[in-house]
Amino acid sequence: MSAAQTARELVTHVLTLRCTDEPGIVAAVSQTIFSHGANIVDSAQYAHERSQTFTLRMEIDVPADAATRFDTDLRSELARFDPILSLRRKAELRRVILMVSKADHCLWDLLYHWQAGDLPVDIVAVVSNHETLKPLVEPHGIPFHLLPITPDTKVEQEAKLRALVADTGADFIVLARYMQILSDDFCSRYPGRIINIHHSFLPGFKGAKPYHQAYDRGVKLIGATAHYVTSDLDEGPIIEQDVVRISHRHLEDDLVKMGRDVERRVLTRAVRLHAEDRVMLTGHRTVIFD
Amino acid sequence: MSAAQTARELVTHVLTLRCTDEPGIVAAVSQTIFSHGANIVDSAQYAHERSQTFTLRMEIDVPADAATRFDTDLRSELARFDPILSLRRKAELRRVILMVSKADHCLWDLLYHWQAGDLPVDIVAVVSNHETLKPLVEPHGIPFHLLPITPDTKVEQEAKLRALVADTGADFIVLARYMQILSDDFCSRYPGRIINIHHSFLPGFKGAKPYHQAYDRGVKLIGATAHYVTSDLDEGPIIEQDVVRISHRHLEDDLVKMGRDVERRVLTRAVRLHAEDRVMLTGHRTVIFD
Amino acid sequence: MSAAQTARELVTHVLTLRCTDEPGIVAAVSQTIFSHGANIVDSAQYAHERSQTFTLRMEIDVPADAATRFDTDLRSELARFDPILSLRRKAELRRVILMVSKADHCLWDLLYHWQAGDLPVDIVAVVSNHETLKPLVEPHGIPFHLLPITPDTKVEQEAKLRALVADTGADFIVLARYMQILSDDFCSRYPGRIINIHHSFLPGFKGAKPYHQAYDRGVKLIGATAHYVTSDLDEGPIIEQDVVRISHRHLEDDLVKMGRDVERRVLTRAVRLHAEDRVMLTGHRTVIFD
Amino acid sequence: MSAAQTARELVTHVLTLRCTDEPGIVAAVSQTIFSHGANIVDSAQYAHERSQTFTLRMEIDVPADAATRFDTDLRSELARFDPILSLRRKAELRRVILMVSKADHCLWDLLYHWQAGDLPVDIVAVVSNHETLKPLVEPHGIPFHLLPITPDTKVEQEAKLRALVADTGADFIVLARYMQILSDDFCSRYPGRIINIHHSFLPGFKGAKPYHQAYDRGVKLIGATAHYVTSDLDEGPIIEQDVVRISHRHLEDDLVKMGRDVERRVLTRAVRLHAEDRVMLTGHRTVIFD
Repeated sequence: MSAAQTARELVTHVLTLRCTDEPGIVAAVSQTIFSHGANIVDSAQYAHERSQTFTLRMEIDVPADAATRFDTDLRSELARFDPILSLRRKAELRRVILMVSKADHCLWDLLYHWQAGDLPVDIVAVVSNHETLKPLVEPHGIPFHLLPITPDTKVEQEAKLRALVADTGADFIVLARYMQILSDDFCSRYPGRIINIHHSFLPGFKGAKPYHQAYDRGVKLIGATAHYVTSDLDEGPIIEQDVVRISHRHLEDDLVKMGRDVERRVLTRAVRLHAEDRVMLTGHRTVIFD
Repeated sequence: MSAAQTARELVTHVLTLRCTDEPGIVAAVSQTIFSHGANIVDSAQYAHERSQTFTLRMEIDVPADAATRFDTDLRSELARFDPILSLRRKAELRRVILMVSKADHCLWDLLYHWQAGDLPVDIVAVVSNHETLKPLVEPHGIPFHLLPITPDTKVEQEAKLRALVADTGADFIVLARYMQILSDDFCSRYPGRIINIHHSFLPGFKGAKPYHQAYDRGVKLIGATAHYVTSDLDEGPIIEQDVVRISHRHLEDDLVKMGRDVERRVLTRAVRLHAEDRVMLTGHRTVIFD
Repeated sequence: MSAAQTARELVTHVLTLRCTDEPGIVAAVSQTIFSHGANIVDSAQYAHERSQTFTLRMEIDVPADAATRFDTDLRSELARFDPILSLRRKAELRRVILMVSKADHCLWDLLYHWQAGDLPVDIVAVVSNHETLKPLVEPHGIPFHLLPITPDTKVEQEAKLRALVADTGADFIVLARYMQILSDDFCSRYPGRIINIHHSFLPGFKGAKPYHQAYDRGVKLIGATAHYVTSDLDEGPIIEQDVVRISHRHLEDDLVKMGRDVERRVLTRAVRLHAEDRVMLTGHRTVIFD
Repeated sequence: MSAAQTARELVTHVLTLRCTDEPGIVAAVSQTIFSHGANIVDSAQYAHERSQTFTLRMEIDVPADAATRFDTDLRSELARFDPILSLRRKAELRRVILMVSKADHCLWDLLYHWQAGDLPVDIVAVVSNHETLKPLVEPHGIPFHLLPITPDTKVEQEAKLRALVADTGADFIVLARYMQILSDDFCSRYPGRIINIHHSFLPGFKGAKPYHQAYDRGVKLIGATAHYVTSDLDEGPIIEQDVVRISHRHLEDDLVKMGRDVERRVLTRAVRLHAEDRVMLTGHRTVIFD
């Protein structure tokens, strides 16, 4: 870099891009970057041949005084590829709403990593249908919203939730062991923006009480799956999975306890990947740029 | 140990025992061991409370001149517990028949570990419905038996296989990617004595082409399962499982390749556990003393 | 079990035993158990041939009305083996003092598991040389003791610490990223009772700034080690270790962040193993009955 | 892609590039690719800020009739960045010489993966200082060269080895448990082209008998390290590492056996990474594009 360039203040941006694959996309992106005096810090791309889908994630240092023009020019230059494109300052954290019920293990882990500064999100609200976890949330200065759900109030409460999403400008929602099923209508409003943790290594044990199913079957590993929520329960695109080894000594209650550890680990990883714009959707599969 | 004891030649035995749980079993076992001047080298036990099943595995150094009497007395002393009991010299290897088709990855791994001296089995025969792997087997001096299977010859060939089991004194059979389904009649003759490797992390993807199912579902881990064969396909008691991490870059063919590595690893581990008498059946679950 | 036996209230006890190996130990233990109407629930043993050391851990259901007599008789019966023996009610939790400085990651994990009920300890005090973590501790109702250390006050403060151990009846001490070095005199008073977490996969990178050493060397895995504290820094008997995979993208600060996760996981596991009497010392090596 | 483009035969190439980081590199590469009707299939890049080193790996589909011109133009276009650049057809396998002594575990694994078609190398020779493994090699039709080494013959034998490298056009050499130390002179002729497997998780246990050191220290994990050979023994740039969990039951001989499994796994992975041009050297550290 020349002395002139290093003298300009640089602002790191995160670019993600998805479009139909065709020649020239990277040339167009990199030419635009170069011509604005910006520099690629990190880059990963993947073309899924079968669906002809191209995906890209870049971290780009952009001169502060060129940032607005860069954004405009990049969108203009790429318009012919008709991309789904996101460009944001890396320092502007993704805003998230956490939804919980009574179980606290996922919430503990998310709060721990957030307050430690290694989970780049802005937690704008915690929503629950129970008061139980309020004391865990409030000392951190995060607003806690009680939205109890009954069959009669579900429509009304989801309306409040939608208002909260709008008011807080939340980018995504994390169901951190939220035990209620959101309506199809609600889910379809936020495609690829709601993350759930399923307490099973999908598709191993769908439905209720997966640890009891695992015990009965005598499996040697149990797992957890973080996935985007779609109207098809337990079938949304998978973001992250992991397993833990168990033995014959472990009864259902032990599996529940051990499962909590893998659940919270998997969910935190998925939230981090999403918050850093590292998850790209191609159909019902995900591309992970880690 | 006193000088007199160390002067006697000791022979290591492996004892396994399964019976209904009740007080006094360990006391009876250890008293018999002590009274014959034998010594416990290694011991593990587990009582499955729900099924009231007690299981035990011991390695015992028995004075050579007391070995026969020890065997008789132990069986006599324990008879009141009505146990399923096995006592054998550790140096007398379990005899195994390997069954293969055309895929060689599991066979390679079993042969490697066997010839390296770290898989304690005596491979008495390799059986296949194809000639393909004969050249891999014969340099090792292991008899290769061709038993091609058609719908018309299945009954006849299984009869030959039963004869082979009898003639070789085989303790167990390993289906090392043997692509034929054994008849219910055959399976039921050797309960807990036939090990299969399933190319999936059961119960995730049962049935055909699990790696293609895994690709379609976009899972982040694929696995393999070694289990005992029962008449209920893919449902026998699980001995060992493991997984390997995959990414969006891996197509079905990649999963097949990566799957081979986890299959062979899991099968070899299961064969070792079985050959060392470390797997106990309690109903349709296994106790693993590793 | 007969109806009469099941009618008696049973109390689960944990027995650990270490002595010179010789025939008859298990016979003596199991005969005593049997004769008091007690029953072995879980048992593991290991004889380290080279050092002639025998180690055993049992969980035993003892009739409540026979518990005192069982304790007396067992000690009497085993006295000829001159064992190091511990027998306690499983429900009586081990008492622990946690020592911290400013880093909170290990403390968070220990508090989380403790309040979730899956870390069987009674945290009788948190001691720190800084006020920093007081707000994290006090909402849980755990006494927080500030013991700032300077070269001048070290002797005096360690005396206070010893008094605290005595007053609280603490069974063991956990250095949860406590950045001070305890004196040899202090350490030697509590052999096998102080657990430290070292932020390296020992013996890979001893001494200061192991993550910076790991970065410089370009390793592909970093780890953490939980060990008992002896006067020989970084050299005490190892209880547990684990690693996490890193890549070229991770700078020293990333390794520090990723290292925190493996540190807290390893320390919590080590504390659980110790609290459940699953760690036996044989010389400078540990036997782990997990 | 337009119909015209898909009609042209495409040949997949692998491009790697390393140079001082400055703006415009990716723009130059991607513009050249675009202007020749080629297409990026896969791409990864990394800029190591501290050393100002830029590294890139791409898989590019190049029209067959434009391949020669593309090669020329790309080198010409990038000349101003003074890169270390490699461009080759993906189907042209890297040629490798394997060097062994008597231990066969790494050789078995490399041969297995090679014959299974999932290790993209052309094994042009196996060299050994012993006859032991000749029978394992020759059935595969691979030339076996006996080059026994004594202090007197070392210079002469290394000369033969250099001639063999030249004659076979070998791209790299793999020391698959070759127990001789190559001379500094020999090593310095092939920087980044000789891969060794060290039977330890470096830098944990350097020098001789690492498994005995590991036993003595009572570690809970043992590992292996694949690294490039430099004149500084055990200190070359690390390509891959892995570990396996051990327990107190495992004596030195068990560690040796278990270590073999992790050694062969790590070495095979390292050979695959190198053969696929996924390892880039930046100083004494490696960038791995996997």
